[in-house]
Amino acid sequence: MVTFEQAYEIISTISVCPTRETTSLRDALGRVLAQEIIADADLPAFDRSAMDGYACRLADLDKPLTVLEVIAAGAWPTREIGAGECAKIMTGAPTPKGAELVIMVEDTLVNTDGTVSYTGKALPHTCDTAHKVPNNIRYCGEDLKAGDCILGGGQIINPAIVASLATIGCTHPEVFTRPKVAVISTGNELVEPGMSLREGTIRNSNGPQLVAQLLQSGAEPIYMGIAPDDKEATAAMLQQAMQQVDMILFSGGVSMGDFDFVPEVLVEAGFEIDFDSVAVQPGKPTLFAHKGAQFCFGLPGNPVSAYIQFELLVTPLICRMSGHTIHTKDILLPLADDFQRSKAKRHSWIPVAIINGTIHKIRYNGSGHISALAQADGFISFPIGISHLKKGELTNVRQI
Amino acid sequence: MVTFEQAYEIISTISVCPTRETTSLRDALGRVLAQEIIADADLPAFDRSAMDGYACRLADLDKPLTVLEVIAAGAWPTREIGAGECAKIMTGAPTPKGAELVIMVEDTLVNTDGTVSYTGKALPHTCDTAHKVPNNIRYCGEDLKAGDCILGGGQIINPAIVASLATIGCTHPEVFTRPKVAVISTGNELVEPGMSLREGTIRNSNGPQLVAQLLQSGAEPIYMGIAPDDKEATAAMLQQAMQQVDMILFSGGVSMGDFDFVPEVLVEAGFEIDFDSVAVQPGKPTLFAHKGAQFCFGLPGNPVSAYIQFELLVTPLICRMSGHTIHTKDILLPLADDFQRSKAKRHSWIPVAIINGTIHKIRYNGSGHISALAQADGFISFPIGISHLKKGELTNVRQI
Repeated sequence: MVTFEQAYEIISTISVCPTRETTSLRDALGRVLAQEIIADADLPAFDRSAMDGYACRLADLDKPLTVLEVIAAGAWPTREIGAGECAKIMTGAPTPKGAELVIMVEDTLVNTDGTVSYTGKALPHTCDTAHKVPNNIRYCGEDLKAGDCILGGGQIINPAIVASLATIGCTHPEVFTRPKVAVISTGNELVEPGMSLREGTIRNSNGPQLVAQLLQSGAEPIYMGIAPDDKEATAAMLQQAMQQVDMILFSGGVSMGDFDFVPEVLVEAGFEIDFDSVAVQPGKPTLFAHKGAQFCFGLPGNPVSAYIQFELLVTPLICRMSGHTIHTKDILLPLADDFQRSKAKRHSWIPVAIINGTIHKIRYNGSGHISALAQADGFISFPIGISHLKKGELTNVRQI
Repeated sequence: MVTFEQAYEIISTISVCPTRETTSLRDALGRVLAQEIIADADLPAFDRSAMDGYACRLADLDKPLTVLEVIAAGAWPTREIGAGECAKIMTGAPTPKGAELVIMVEDTLVNTDGTVSYTGKALPHTCDTAHKVPNNIRYCGEDLKAGDCILGGGQIINPAIVASLATIGCTHPEVFTRPKVAVISTGNELVEPGMSLREGTIRNSNGPQLVAQLLQSGAEPIYMGIAPDDKEATAAMLQQAMQQVDMILFSGGVSMGDFDFVPEVLVEAGFEIDFDSVAVQPGKPTLFAHKGAQFCFGLPGNPVSAYIQFELLVTPLICRMSGHTIHTKDILLPLADDFQRSKAKRHSWIPVAIINGTIHKIRYNGSGHISALAQADGFISFPIGISHLKKGELTNVRQI
């Protein structure tokens, strides 16, 4: 048996080999970026107007201006602005040579002879060459210079990153390959949710739960089904999984029972067992093994145990296999209640609700009580030796 | 022009009609639950063992016990436990009649004659009928009674909810239909990211960005392409979109320019314009219109403006159309810097970074500076009239 910290250290340091692939911009959301985002040109690529209005000289604002042309967005100016002249210009259009500012259309009046007069508030008559007078011009390269690095890779691609990829013309970004993970539920007591229950059987909730947790953590789940309490059948399912995936998750089959074949089957298949139980509650019978770059977790059969140990140990390893750094959804909030436990020998986690920014107790009977988790917002932990967390204490909540 | 609060009030009260459909358990993750989750049976459905061990009477712990049978998980006991007797039992297996507790296999010794002796610490000799002595038995119905409501619907389905659905045998949960939303970028200056740029043109980042924001908010995006600066073409694209979707998003085309046809085209198509600009920065030229239960946003052409107004106004409406309550990813954190602005006439938002739990400035040139958003963790706001936010002040960050 290892402590949680020892188990976490093993998961955090074991060698992983993330691989790369390209995807479309449409499918990039949620993937892990595996390339730098480098500006391919100055941005803006040309001096452009930030407003709909008239481009002119600063010294000419007190006289009627002759309109030389209309510059639409997407067009290119054909005339240079001289004294007493302007060009009507649309937001995003290139500003013409000679123009020192763009006056907003709302601050102008079109005269009967077609000239345009400025009706806005007075402006200084000299143009600040450092572009510090607000002149409604966005200068070439003011946001980015060609070659600037926007992001270095390793981030989960969000819509803002999608926009930056589009901006540099990257329609097929390089991303890290999603780790493929097989899920095998074990136990003769299990019946798939759509099937009818016999006496002594229960529905397999761990299978769908682990598949959903894998999807949420960015892995590609492959559900293999239920392994019966039979060593040869379990070994055969393991072999089948090993041919397809980077990681195998067993639920159940790793404790002290007569039909807990998983550790034996793993060793016979050439896996090295790094730990076979962890001093945590719930989830003591949690096993981790590796064979080269192929990993296996034996998670407990109890659904709350499997859920929590997945979040604590499997998710961080999937993050590393996916090329990004371990991240947690922890948030520090005050306890609304006193929390106590009778024993303090293991590091323990319990589900809680977050209500108005404080941490509240919920009804929770223990590791079989999966419906409690559906009502929880996260879980908090008691470290070894701690049996009392006081009302008001700032406590980490791992959000679910 | 309306204030942000007025715009938000319109979005929050306009009539919506979420519809329902069923999906598979595998595809349920991230969808909005549209049914109650009711326990179809007591849970556990029978008294079951929480441990691998021996089921026996409490009074018999000081004598060798005769093993009547082995009860595997998924099997049913055939014998009642009498004085001096026990059954070997696996985790999750039904406990036999007459058994008052399960002693852990780790606390036992198998004698040479096949009997089993208890080697654990002394336990009281009377059984607490309220089941309060830790006896490693999970009693029928202790987690849920048949008919108990686990969840009432309206939640986003997470892996814990998937597990509860599996537990009650619900393989095809009812969920709210994802709103279908069309995205139309407008402007002759736009070129799709994969195409080559001509002088005066820029890449269309708003299209991919809005598609990604829609996916993230739970909608089903339909990208329609770029509408040129031409009224008939814009009207034709609107008509095409109206036949397919619940909502249309335009980016650009709603400001003061000669080619900003969107408001006119919407009115001619029978839309009522609820507001055509909002006193916010960035994003003043943000329009909202409706025609029955069909909605339209005209978002600004500047990418940061479009991004922020999507988060502030489009996401809450999509939440309502998806059958769940408006939720934000706000988090209250202290400012690591002083934040100032020169004008305070509009409610303004600026991107920030979160570093070690505090809010930091990032380089941000304004609404065209989309690469700043890729480096941001969220944004904070200055309400109207406020031009200074002091270092140390607790401030809401809308996470992105």
